[in-house]
Amino acid sequence: MAEKITARSVDYSQWYIDIILKAKLADYSPVKGSMVIRPRGYAIWERLRDELDRRFKATGHQNAYFPLFIPMSFLKKEAEHVEGFSPELAVVTHAGGEELEEPLVVRPTSETIIWAKYRDWIQSYRDLPLLYNQWANVVRWEKRTRLFLRTSEFLWQEGHTAHETKAEAVAETEQMLEVYRHFAEEILCLPVIAGKKSEAEKFAGAVDTYSIEAMMQDKKALQAGTSHFLGQNFAKAFDVQYQTREGGLEYVWATSWGVSTRLVGAIIMTHSDDKGLVVPPLLAQDEIVIVPIFKNETKADVLAYTAKLEAALKADGRRVVLDADENNSPGWKFAEWEMRGVPLRVEAGPKDMAAGSVVLVRRDTGTKLVVKAEELPTMVASQLAAMQKEMLEKARAFRDANTRDVADRAAMLAFFGKEGAGIDTATGGFARGLWCGGRDCEAKLKAEIKVTIRNMPHDMQDNIAGGCCLCGAPAKHRAIFARSY
Amino acid sequence: MAEKITARSVDYSQWYIDIILKAKLADYSPVKGSMVIRPRGYAIWERLRDELDRRFKATGHQNAYFPLFIPMSFLKKEAEHVEGFSPELAVVTHAGGEELEEPLVVRPTSETIIWAKYRDWIQSYRDLPLLYNQWANVVRWEKRTRLFLRTSEFLWQEGHTAHETKAEAVAETEQMLEVYRHFAEEILCLPVIAGKKSEAEKFAGAVDTYSIEAMMQDKKALQAGTSHFLGQNFAKAFDVQYQTREGGLEYVWATSWGVSTRLVGAIIMTHSDDKGLVVPPLLAQDEIVIVPIFKNETKADVLAYTAKLEAALKADGRRVVLDADENNSPGWKFAEWEMRGVPLRVEAGPKDMAAGSVVLVRRDTGTKLVVKAEELPTMVASQLAAMQKEMLEKARAFRDANTRDVADRAAMLAFFGKEGAGIDTATGGFARGLWCGGRDCEAKLKAEIKVTIRNMPHDMQDNIAGGCCLCGAPAKHRAIFARSY
Repeated sequence: MAEKITARSVDYSQWYIDIILKAKLADYSPVKGSMVIRPRGYAIWERLRDELDRRFKATGHQNAYFPLFIPMSFLKKEAEHVEGFSPELAVVTHAGGEELEEPLVVRPTSETIIWAKYRDWIQSYRDLPLLYNQWANVVRWEKRTRLFLRTSEFLWQEGHTAHETKAEAVAETEQMLEVYRHFAEEILCLPVIAGKKSEAEKFAGAVDTYSIEAMMQDKKALQAGTSHFLGQNFAKAFDVQYQTREGGLEYVWATSWGVSTRLVGAIIMTHSDDKGLVVPPLLAQDEIVIVPIFKNETKADVLAYTAKLEAALKADGRRVVLDADENNSPGWKFAEWEMRGVPLRVEAGPKDMAAGSVVLVRRDTGTKLVVKAEELPTMVASQLAAMQKEMLEKARAFRDANTRDVADRAAMLAFFGKEGAGIDTATGGFARGLWCGGRDCEAKLKAEIKVTIRNMPHDMQDNIAGGCCLCGAPAKHRAIFARSY
Repeated sequence: MAEKITARSVDYSQWYIDIILKAKLADYSPVKGSMVIRPRGYAIWERLRDELDRRFKATGHQNAYFPLFIPMSFLKKEAEHVEGFSPELAVVTHAGGEELEEPLVVRPTSETIIWAKYRDWIQSYRDLPLLYNQWANVVRWEKRTRLFLRTSEFLWQEGHTAHETKAEAVAETEQMLEVYRHFAEEILCLPVIAGKKSEAEKFAGAVDTYSIEAMMQDKKALQAGTSHFLGQNFAKAFDVQYQTREGGLEYVWATSWGVSTRLVGAIIMTHSDDKGLVVPPLLAQDEIVIVPIFKNETKADVLAYTAKLEAALKADGRRVVLDADENNSPGWKFAEWEMRGVPLRVEAGPKDMAAGSVVLVRRDTGTKLVVKAEELPTMVASQLAAMQKEMLEKARAFRDANTRDVADRAAMLAFFGKEGAGIDTATGGFARGLWCGGRDCEAKLKAEIKVTIRNMPHDMQDNIAGGCCLCGAPAKHRAIFARSY
């Protein structure tokens, strides 16, 4: 306990893993590549999930649950889909003591099983739209894994909607991207760039994929959510036609969209520091820890004082913990609760008590305030709100400070340095550049310096004039280039 | 839509399936034995889950998440456990395009993977207790399945706790059984009998299993939840020892407990009728449907009137739906919403509007009340509360009316009739009888007439005096005998 965690400047990857293990957010599983989410990590996921679920319901979506196992033949019905997911599948071949006639895939995503059912449920335009979401586990067998960010099994939500028209489905895809963007900024304090993915990076089976992209503290990008316009691809693969208002038959239009437990990793990587975890107050399991400071002769009075503070905060609906353990010193407790990421700390000893005040310390800035005891609930509310707001601003300022316009190949290479150099924090970030739209340009850059197009931001597509920053050919898009998780 | 469902008296099993399919609670999956939970069914599960989760947290438990895949070797570490679950396992043999070195079991329950991790997390009495729960999917390959009641994949929660002493673990086992009992009665309107399972019926790997048992409308029993005292069995299998307060080493004491989506089936079977679904108001997706009754000339006025009613109910926090669809008649709508199980119906036409009133109809009893519009929110609140209370009372009265004391073998056979006869509602129910505790008596009865000991109720173990109702030997317990799901 209270062991030091590796500093970011020494080893960024180890710093990230140290925080997860020492703050008890997650742990390795005996099965390679999967993880155990411990209560302190799950509490963050649970709060995040509930907040997102409210937003889904407010936009008219309903939850359902589809089966874990998908017949292998279903995946093969959509050619790009099976090609994309085949290398990552886990396959059940035996069940109930017998070999199965057809192997079952453990879902890597649920388009196929869901569209097989939509065929039963959709006959007419009157059955549309279907606006369904599910919270579930999925499995994608990964060679190189990292806790939260990339694990063989992860938890996620996947929305799957069915529409009468292309326009409606496109509008849904865009709407959900906006839901994710607002959610990321307001709840996770993650400033994100919303835009369209390139052909090379889109979802296997989609017509268009949109994403939100965030910058981590090592200046690498992290894809934090995706929303796919699937066109009629899955409706055609599963023969889902509906009777139109005019009496004709048409294939149904589709979208899907998802975020996962990877978001917990994004939060850790974006906000934490060398002392440990920092989380947005809205997601923190405990918002405030009260640490009483006493000797034997002052113990009874100080504990009575802090118990009152605790009661006042609880009465105000706060998630508060009072650490009155006598085995550890106040200094040890300060470090321990900082490591765990509790947003506010209240320190109260005999002198504070005599003055009728406490010391209030913010986890993100370290700012200390002397606060009158009776004003504590009000001050806690305002500090939590300020922290939620300022964490977003700080992350945005960091991102903006590490974003550059690049005009040509030389500027691109200079910005990113050689392969791997982006891992030390001296070079790299988000490069904003014009792009011809060519797959070759993109593939070559990836092969050379592991930099890819993260997306083509919605709000940067005006006034495209000039040459591609990679090949000089006439540009069609403005794109964000970065190394990524 | 609004098709008739099979009457209970004609075919009870078909009646049950008809309700599920026609009220769109669930549907069959393309993979044999698994199911799709549709939004109207999932909404019940979601409300039930949130209510139970609050009760777990109020008793000090935290949620976590453990991996779906368990190495086959882990299951083999506890001899009874692997013997019990082996016939039901689904096994992943290939992943990521390769054959796995060790096959992975899709969790049928998570004791083994959890205790493998508890070994890492528990060193000293200071680390105890661990009071963890997880909400997850599990797979038990079943030959004969039935929607909600028995499916190869199902959703559930599983609590797994670790304790210093036997007494603490036993107290936890009993506490969670009581949490389930109160929850079943207060939320699901299921009167249940809480007691200990016989050796033959206990969980594979448990020292003692406790259950809550409910009676369905065909008089068969349904096990609605179980709580297991696991002794030190899993701690020994996974070598989980802790340093005691006295400085010694001891194996950790364990419990586990769970309920599943089977509860949705229990609700349907207990409360519904030949018109369709009846659900406890606390679990209903929509609490009230408003059906406006109008002709062309009264349409505008009536719709304005019902919109006001809807707004008043929503302002009161009610889950209300206004069915103003013009394609269907009021009579069709009445039948449709009855089939879907909406607890209260509000009918409002020109005459009601002229009188400033509405007709309020209760789903469970069919009782009609004329209510002044301004009193509607108050009346809705009191009728929903009354319905929640009376549904429990009705189910309890049914169970009690179909429970008999049986003194001997002849009475037992007469009560249950021949095998299968319990399915018509003329015979059977719960038989309360003394039991010697012998496995043979129990096994013989099961083989003869498919009647088993459901449990030995906690509140019926006083004054055990007399002979076993099956063999006449001196009795040790009083037990509930029944056919079961």
